[in-house]
Amino acid sequence: MATKDDLEFIYEVQKEASLIGNAASLLQWDLETYMPKKGIEDRSEQLAILSKLVHEMIIDDKLWAALKRLMKSAVLKKLTPKDRLVVTRLHKGVEKSRKVPTKFVTDYTKFQAICGEKWKIAREKNKFAIFAPYLEKMIKFKKQKIKYINLPGHPYNTLLDSFEEGMTVKQLKPIFEKLKPELVRLLKDIKSTKQYKRQKKTLKGRFPEEGQQAISDWIYPQIIREKDISRIDKSTHPFTVSLGTQDTRFTTRFDDKDPLSSFTGTVHESGHALYDLNLPQKYAHTTLHDAPSFGLHESQSRFWENIMSRSESFANVLFTQFKKGFPTQMKGVKLKDFYHELNFVKPSLIRVEADEVTYCLHIILRFELELALIEGRLKVKDLPAEWNRQMKAMLGVTPKTDALGVLQDVHWSCGYFGYFPTYALGTIYASQLFAQMKKDIPGLERKFGKLQFVPIINWLKKHVHSKGDTIRADDIIKKTCGKGLDVDAYVSYLRTKYKKIYGF
Amino acid sequence: MATKDDLEFIYEVQKEASLIGNAASLLQWDLETYMPKKGIEDRSEQLAILSKLVHEMIIDDKLWAALKRLMKSAVLKKLTPKDRLVVTRLHKGVEKSRKVPTKFVTDYTKFQAICGEKWKIAREKNKFAIFAPYLEKMIKFKKQKIKYINLPGHPYNTLLDSFEEGMTVKQLKPIFEKLKPELVRLLKDIKSTKQYKRQKKTLKGRFPEEGQQAISDWIYPQIIREKDISRIDKSTHPFTVSLGTQDTRFTTRFDDKDPLSSFTGTVHESGHALYDLNLPQKYAHTTLHDAPSFGLHESQSRFWENIMSRSESFANVLFTQFKKGFPTQMKGVKLKDFYHELNFVKPSLIRVEADEVTYCLHIILRFELELALIEGRLKVKDLPAEWNRQMKAMLGVTPKTDALGVLQDVHWSCGYFGYFPTYALGTIYASQLFAQMKKDIPGLERKFGKLQFVPIINWLKKHVHSKGDTIRADDIIKKTCGKGLDVDAYVSYLRTKYKKIYGF
Repeated sequence: MATKDDLEFIYEVQKEASLIGNAASLLQWDLETYMPKKGIEDRSEQLAILSKLVHEMIIDDKLWAALKRLMKSAVLKKLTPKDRLVVTRLHKGVEKSRKVPTKFVTDYTKFQAICGEKWKIAREKNKFAIFAPYLEKMIKFKKQKIKYINLPGHPYNTLLDSFEEGMTVKQLKPIFEKLKPELVRLLKDIKSTKQYKRQKKTLKGRFPEEGQQAISDWIYPQIIREKDISRIDKSTHPFTVSLGTQDTRFTTRFDDKDPLSSFTGTVHESGHALYDLNLPQKYAHTTLHDAPSFGLHESQSRFWENIMSRSESFANVLFTQFKKGFPTQMKGVKLKDFYHELNFVKPSLIRVEADEVTYCLHIILRFELELALIEGRLKVKDLPAEWNRQMKAMLGVTPKTDALGVLQDVHWSCGYFGYFPTYALGTIYASQLFAQMKKDIPGLERKFGKLQFVPIINWLKKHVHSKGDTIRADDIIKKTCGKGLDVDAYVSYLRTKYKKIYGF
Repeated sequence: MATKDDLEFIYEVQKEASLIGNAASLLQWDLETYMPKKGIEDRSEQLAILSKLVHEMIIDDKLWAALKRLMKSAVLKKLTPKDRLVVTRLHKGVEKSRKVPTKFVTDYTKFQAICGEKWKIAREKNKFAIFAPYLEKMIKFKKQKIKYINLPGHPYNTLLDSFEEGMTVKQLKPIFEKLKPELVRLLKDIKSTKQYKRQKKTLKGRFPEEGQQAISDWIYPQIIREKDISRIDKSTHPFTVSLGTQDTRFTTRFDDKDPLSSFTGTVHESGHALYDLNLPQKYAHTTLHDAPSFGLHESQSRFWENIMSRSESFANVLFTQFKKGFPTQMKGVKLKDFYHELNFVKPSLIRVEADEVTYCLHIILRFELELALIEGRLKVKDLPAEWNRQMKAMLGVTPKTDALGVLQDVHWSCGYFGYFPTYALGTIYASQLFAQMKKDIPGLERKFGKLQFVPIINWLKKHVHSKGDTIRADDIIKKTCGKGLDVDAYVSYLRTKYKKIYGF
């Protein structure tokens, strides 16, 4: 077949797969936001059939034949740079997908929705035993997937690769082994200060949902500036999902005792949404219309959440909003204390509520447990005890219940093993991007407090979003910041910031 | 192939098609409720691809071959009654679908979403000219579809048949020709009364949305009694859609000057939803898991809306709810006047707000215009003038703007030509079901006012819902009420009720 026809064909398949993927994303979004509970059984089958359709499209022999013809070096070198990228990226993805049988995909997707529901019930009832048999089955699915795809090196590499392409246990372990003692040391320094010893919450009482909603509705259009392309809803676990190139949605949750968490949650998800919405339209409905990795995606949410929204400069304007939204509750609260509370360091039980210093320790815990589960060193039934033991050892706190411990995250119930490490990678990347951005944008931190986000958004678009999935995450960081993943840069960012706050 | 394999195969295809259809319904529901505006372009393509997939599944030669083997009389007679029904019904549907090329389906579905958006804009801007070129294109699509399917008799029969299987212009015209003068006469009788001349609204002022929402949330679980299988949202045009056998959703809209309209809207859609949710689970994901016609579906919504919720007995309890929800606005309003206002007869511009007496005249208008458009006797550009002329002739009122006239309904923008007549059929069926129900359930009307809906729901389930799509709508009515579609019964119901109210 002529190259032109092959190209046309592979673009058509990508587009169809992408549109069906959008429909599946809507099924997923709806499941988390508005679906009546009893819809779950049909829903899991609906998701399964769409996954099956996409999988069948991707592993179809006709597509594979077209890709093989296009991958011949004589053909490849004559393509435009964009077509060449599409062909090589798609070839790689298809090659991987062709290793997984359709039946596995269908069974897995069906099980995924049910496993998610069981996790919800287990969490509500605070009983790990309800979830345990499903988690065991999920791990079996994961091991089966590893067998199918079988990337070189550690079995866990196959799982990691789905979220952070090219990342391996061999690379990741030393990163975490370096980071862990640094964080523990920093935490110790902070805990030794007077400031730490006397820190206590100044935001007290109840903060009604409407007030929190208003603050959420105020900040999110500052980041997502274009109208009618996004929306925000509520869900148990906040997330962002794109249902088309002009329709990205995210969720938040409200806790009337902790108004900062819904605020930072909204900012976090806005950072994700901004990335998706800024992906180049020219790559729409191709494999390039994506981030190169979950870690890089997370760098965007973490930049807005940690670096922008917890900055001293921004705390000013947020303080004003809080006083406006909660005049009674904010009575007598000082700006200085508000800023401090926004950056409280305190070992705690829940990952999504953790501060910048302890956050990565929560990740390292999960990474080590996942590794032990996959290697078979740890049994599911022993997971809660091991979780609690390591929490105590690393953070000095012990969950009183499963819901506050091992059941807190949705990830394992969705089969997202290998996902957690990307949160740490993104957090590190964010600090590197910030260091570079400071050099490129004069008076950057002052801009945070003036809500002058446009130059920041443009900078992120230029250096990160506009790349789509054309080069690896680490190469984007290297090209932008002069160096790839850099634990030292991250630790230095933390030390500088928290030294100033805690005065150790 | 063995009969057993053929059967298994056709059930599998039906299930997959049904699940993909569910996903498409969610895309549609979301489009009307929560989708950010700019999502529309991708959305239309997402809908198109799912329609294409279902169409391809249905017209696949393998399915057709299996059905032909199963349709052989020697094979057919050995099947269980359920399998036999599935085979024959599916065969009929597939035969029809195979006449329509996939490309037509894709083009049409893509256009449908865009046409819907253009209608919305035209209505907002109150300008028919914006919508006209799209309506013209839509009519071309319809004429093309008629050419493909080409049912015997009038070209419009093909369009009718999509909504009311087996219905023809030849049957429908005399029904409407008989009904029209009867309604005009009744309206004249009513207009001649003192009661009519002095009737004026007693529900005055603004009725805030929350109060209306509360009444909506109070009534709908009385009809849909099972929890976690439905939800209600807001949309421009109220509708009901099923996204699975345990997930049926409907919408309502709130007008702060007309609290009765949101209330009756909710009751109307609840009637539709109840039907879908009561369809037999044993027919799930087969062609039998459906109503036999839109008319019969409408009989359920009209029963709850007109017969139950506008009854004298129910007006009592509704009056109490209104006084609770709107104490200020209801001050001085008498029950008698409230009941009368619930049943005001008054020629008006908007179909969905029309009373029981004038409603079918709105339908007859649309039927006659559709017929003229399809026959080519009427041009799109002349449609608004013709609409206004006939409104004046039949109801004595003239819309001042397109939004209040020709642009008021969503149907044409979705390509639903042939749909309107089913509203009248359903309204007639509802009156027949009511007459029979009164014989079967002692003290029926008293039960309305006591919210004792369970025996009513069971009666409807037994005689209507539980049949699924196994027998024709008219046969269900004949079997239940002793006679098929009966204009006289309907006119007699109206005369009795309104004679009592207006005293002519």
